[in-house]
Amino acid sequence: MNTTDRIGVAIAGITGYTGIELARILSRHPRVELRFLGGRSRAGEPLEAGAPSLSRLVTGEVEAVDAERIAARADVAFLALPHGAAAEVAVPLLERGTMVIDLSADFRLRDPEIHRAWYGEHKAPALIGTAIYAMPEIARAQIRGARFLASPGCYPTAATLSLAPLVAAGWIDATDLIVDSKSGASGAGRGASVANLLAETGEAIHAYNVTRHRHTPEIEMALGMVGGCEARVTFTPHLVPMSRGILSTAYARPRVPRSAAEVQELYERHYRDEPFVRVLPQDRLPDTAHVRGSNFIDIAVRVDQRAGGRIIALAAIDNLVKGASGQAVQAMNIALGFAETCGLDFAPMFP
Amino acid sequence: MNTTDRIGVAIAGITGYTGIELARILSRHPRVELRFLGGRSRAGEPLEAGAPSLSRLVTGEVEAVDAERIAARADVAFLALPHGAAAEVAVPLLERGTMVIDLSADFRLRDPEIHRAWYGEHKAPALIGTAIYAMPEIARAQIRGARFLASPGCYPTAATLSLAPLVAAGWIDATDLIVDSKSGASGAGRGASVANLLAETGEAIHAYNVTRHRHTPEIEMALGMVGGCEARVTFTPHLVPMSRGILSTAYARPRVPRSAAEVQELYERHYRDEPFVRVLPQDRLPDTAHVRGSNFIDIAVRVDQRAGGRIIALAAIDNLVKGASGQAVQAMNIALGFAETCGLDFAPMFP
Amino acid sequence: MNTTDRIGVAIAGITGYTGIELARILSRHPRVELRFLGGRSRAGEPLEAGAPSLSRLVTGEVEAVDAERIAARADVAFLALPHGAAAEVAVPLLERGTMVIDLSADFRLRDPEIHRAWYGEHKAPALIGTAIYAMPEIARAQIRGARFLASPGCYPTAATLSLAPLVAAGWIDATDLIVDSKSGASGAGRGASVANLLAETGEAIHAYNVTRHRHTPEIEMALGMVGGCEARVTFTPHLVPMSRGILSTAYARPRVPRSAAEVQELYERHYRDEPFVRVLPQDRLPDTAHVRGSNFIDIAVRVDQRAGGRIIALAAIDNLVKGASGQAVQAMNIALGFAETCGLDFAPMFP
Amino acid sequence: MNTTDRIGVAIAGITGYTGIELARILSRHPRVELRFLGGRSRAGEPLEAGAPSLSRLVTGEVEAVDAERIAARADVAFLALPHGAAAEVAVPLLERGTMVIDLSADFRLRDPEIHRAWYGEHKAPALIGTAIYAMPEIARAQIRGARFLASPGCYPTAATLSLAPLVAAGWIDATDLIVDSKSGASGAGRGASVANLLAETGEAIHAYNVTRHRHTPEIEMALGMVGGCEARVTFTPHLVPMSRGILSTAYARPRVPRSAAEVQELYERHYRDEPFVRVLPQDRLPDTAHVRGSNFIDIAVRVDQRAGGRIIALAAIDNLVKGASGQAVQAMNIALGFAETCGLDFAPMFP
Repeated sequence: MNTTDRIGVAIAGITGYTGIELARILSRHPRVELRFLGGRSRAGEPLEAGAPSLSRLVTGEVEAVDAERIAARADVAFLALPHGAAAEVAVPLLERGTMVIDLSADFRLRDPEIHRAWYGEHKAPALIGTAIYAMPEIARAQIRGARFLASPGCYPTAATLSLAPLVAAGWIDATDLIVDSKSGASGAGRGASVANLLAETGEAIHAYNVTRHRHTPEIEMALGMVGGCEARVTFTPHLVPMSRGILSTAYARPRVPRSAAEVQELYERHYRDEPFVRVLPQDRLPDTAHVRGSNFIDIAVRVDQRAGGRIIALAAIDNLVKGASGQAVQAMNIALGFAETCGLDFAPMFP
Repeated sequence: MNTTDRIGVAIAGITGYTGIELARILSRHPRVELRFLGGRSRAGEPLEAGAPSLSRLVTGEVEAVDAERIAARADVAFLALPHGAAAEVAVPLLERGTMVIDLSADFRLRDPEIHRAWYGEHKAPALIGTAIYAMPEIARAQIRGARFLASPGCYPTAATLSLAPLVAAGWIDATDLIVDSKSGASGAGRGASVANLLAETGEAIHAYNVTRHRHTPEIEMALGMVGGCEARVTFTPHLVPMSRGILSTAYARPRVPRSAAEVQELYERHYRDEPFVRVLPQDRLPDTAHVRGSNFIDIAVRVDQRAGGRIIALAAIDNLVKGASGQAVQAMNIALGFAETCGLDFAPMFP
Repeated sequence: MNTTDRIGVAIAGITGYTGIELARILSRHPRVELRFLGGRSRAGEPLEAGAPSLSRLVTGEVEAVDAERIAARADVAFLALPHGAAAEVAVPLLERGTMVIDLSADFRLRDPEIHRAWYGEHKAPALIGTAIYAMPEIARAQIRGARFLASPGCYPTAATLSLAPLVAAGWIDATDLIVDSKSGASGAGRGASVANLLAETGEAIHAYNVTRHRHTPEIEMALGMVGGCEARVTFTPHLVPMSRGILSTAYARPRVPRSAAEVQELYERHYRDEPFVRVLPQDRLPDTAHVRGSNFIDIAVRVDQRAGGRIIALAAIDNLVKGASGQAVQAMNIALGFAETCGLDFAPMFP
Repeated sequence: MNTTDRIGVAIAGITGYTGIELARILSRHPRVELRFLGGRSRAGEPLEAGAPSLSRLVTGEVEAVDAERIAARADVAFLALPHGAAAEVAVPLLERGTMVIDLSADFRLRDPEIHRAWYGEHKAPALIGTAIYAMPEIARAQIRGARFLASPGCYPTAATLSLAPLVAAGWIDATDLIVDSKSGASGAGRGASVANLLAETGEAIHAYNVTRHRHTPEIEMALGMVGGCEARVTFTPHLVPMSRGILSTAYARPRVPRSAAEVQELYERHYRDEPFVRVLPQDRLPDTAHVRGSNFIDIAVRVDQRAGGRIIALAAIDNLVKGASGQAVQAMNIALGFAETCGLDFAPMFP
């Protein structure tokens, strides 16, 4: 293929897990060409030193993250940087007209007060609220043609899409929600740490940041976008001894009791045309093993008739794909008018 | 030590995980002597063939499970058999005057209707309701001197003890509870299976039996015993890629809003004298890695002020110890008047 | 794409791990079309019941394995069946002119005596020795145009390719080799079993079939093909608590002492043009995490100068890809004249 | 029990894995009392902050490691410190007459030249060679009454004991040995690291430090002690995705061919009276799952008749118990004249 027909893309943060996953996906994407591999660490080293899996597939040196050089070479910049660091790079890139897809939390929350309450001072306050919250299944129209996208967090993706049909239909009280989520260890990032050593966590499960995880307001915002209403969530994340995957188990109270069949039909209808959402039949439940490595989200819904018709919505994603890098590429495809599944049609890896 | 001073004990179901764990504990217990190793499979083989870990520590041949021979040799019989099979052995043992500690579900539910609804026809209906539900922290007085004990299930142990202070104090609506539990794979037993192969589940998490797991009515019964009230639970179990451990995350609605300090104080007071319950301070959360191999249950409690004061109660146990074999030995100690921690004072194994 | 331009392929044994992996690869392969999904179990069920990961990507019902129907629809049949069963299907397929790529062990060993000694009576003795042993890196020329291919075993692939440069150069004594291999649990297949339960093996490593694993004569045959000499191997396989991956560590005695640089140069030269072999520099070692999900084999070589110049050759593969399904597709590509990497150019999944 | 009858012990390095394991064992040991919990980090914090598993079992504050205070309170000091740091503490402790059991590598190698070649400059060169290498099964007599013990490394323990009967009998060429070892992640210690994150290594195996791991000369020294001969080993360690356990697979060349029965009989005879060595029958192989948490070493031996009678010796240990803290306590028991199994008679934890 004539590479001049391809869009030039940059990855900033290439040696973290989402950066490596972006490179895995984008290096096989037929419409883009990787033109800049930026890293905050390992600048000057060959990429394969920090990402041996990509050896031979993505070659080149890691470069320091520099907006000017990125803008000179790339049409689209993916920012896979820690929050704060992303904002600092986004500003000059946007000034230079580079399209920015930010995978950090910097531009997801649209309300400056809420951002400050959960994340502290913002590095680019003038830009708060200017990015599109790029979850395709709830904001496809706004993503089209957009030049500044805030790619959703991993937990919010699973939680929001598992509950969206109920919220959109107004069937549940969105101010009385519980999301109990379980994530693999790659969600904690690639920083050196004792808490995430295999020896500590390889045979263990624990909850963390109970009642105060930063994805709480993001889930509330996303569900509010879906339902045009206020949402309130008790969110409990857990660390599970596996590398990848999130399972989200959500509990909602119906406004009016619904049968399992009604709820099932609602979900199937709601997601009928979505290329990456698989609504499971009533005899199956989501398993992270069935979506691993893919951009799919598997969703199931149950009604607990014994407990007043409480609804249980479960979803499984690969946190690094649909929960991060895959979803960001999906949003790019939509924004640029490519086929939505372009470069994302790979199958889950089981086992 | 003069072994004639020891109580003779039998284990029926010695080659399953709870049977092996009973042998691990009882073989080091200073007041008992293992006199019968019964198995439904592997009868006639040396124990170490099916339980190599016990080689040299517990010697002897696996014998067919036979009530007469058990009664002739043992004062106490631990039944680590599948439900149904346990009932069939319990009857003749009780007739012969042998003390029975049943680790199956056969005699836990005291209401015949509820038993039938969740387990089908009972093999010894006349005995339903005659065993003490032997969770020491909620029924210590009844266990003393008892001759027929039904040892609680693993999930109900973690869930009940995590919520008991709130239910006992009447602080929450016991008919509006959610228990989201995560278990290691040993909870599924030692039967050959595809679903529990390492290759299937080693990098995976999924929920199972949503809204219809058989431990649901047991949790409700146990909490009802604690509070003298009706309880209603939505219970969602999950399989986590580890061998041992249960983490239970429960969500409750307070009748009157409570502060974190109030709730913390309630828990510390409630469990002040319990030898195996560790109430964690507000800056720590339970982790199955910190109780593994021990009879401890670690409990923490949180209040979500943003969500109307919803209370989150978390507990971690080793499903094979406090969730099964350890708790059964604890109950035996109480029933026979031994020190409650006798033979159970081993430390968790970390990492 | 016009599907009439595609080759029709069949998979027999679609619900096992190698069958699912074949479907994962072939469903994305631009030159083939999946036309038959055969299974010995689950016939009549939708494929997604036994392979939920493939839902929406590979649709259709599992059919009983029937040579006539396969031959009617497919140009190429992949046999992912247990040994013995494969031979029984291969015979009628070959008679009907269908190209057969057999992933079982039935037609790998070319010597009937050796086959009988390790596997017992053969189901199709007349066909022994008629298939090409289809390891592309050692038999590319013979694979071209062939109609009957025996795809190599997982352990032999890693072991042979790790030692091939030394054997081909005559630098080592091929009758004095040790191969110490470590495999993930998917290598044991998808049959129900106690030994491979997560609870048994999730925190464990053990060797098995020491001195008598059936891949021993296959490694010897493959190395013999490379070197035109007799080979003799002590082979020790181990089960490691992970789903996928083989690490092979081989020990060889040099005929003449060699420096690390000499050996490194030999390997780089030997594999210079191989699309799927990555010879690592002296500062890196193979890790199964870096090849997972891909058709790559990563190889490193070391010289132990303290121990008489003993050479240590290490290789990492994904046992289900380069060790099974990926290598089979690679061989098909060669046999049919497709680009060798066609449909196999996906990147490893890390982490 | 009257605690004045107990020996006072100190642990220096209480918050690392071997330190926590020492506390787990010593807190239940009937002849000792923990009187000093020293840590290089976390001094001033309650122990349970860094070691939550020990909460309620071992209470007290972590203190800075100070020889004077240790000597004032303890009769025996266990040093679970990094190499170098251990030497610096050992000197003043020995001067004050405190018995020292050093779990670091500082005093294992008796030859100053070899120590320097593998570890660099020694912090207390005058003491090199003055400690007893405290592997009870090969040096029990020297340990008795000793005041300065160097506790062996984890890999050397498994490798040495797996080969000792052959070396002692002179049946193999000790200068032509291969040891291929596989360790769980706790062997890498509790320092923050990227390489040992669960996400990196949870589904992976790799070799490391090939031909240059520091345990190489220690294995050679220990085998030399056994056989009164020179030993030479090619040693290849691997990291396996589990928390605990080492499996060692060793390959040796017999001087004279031996039958499996002869070798089996040699091992059984050699280890007949050893309380912690279990020689497995020919139909079983060691598995780390069967020794986990215990001080046992399980050993099996095989003869590969096809390969010139090559002997394969396999051993499994818990790296933190028999490979570190348990063995150190075993040595203390011997040195002080306690029963050798005192405080160490706990059973392995399976599963």
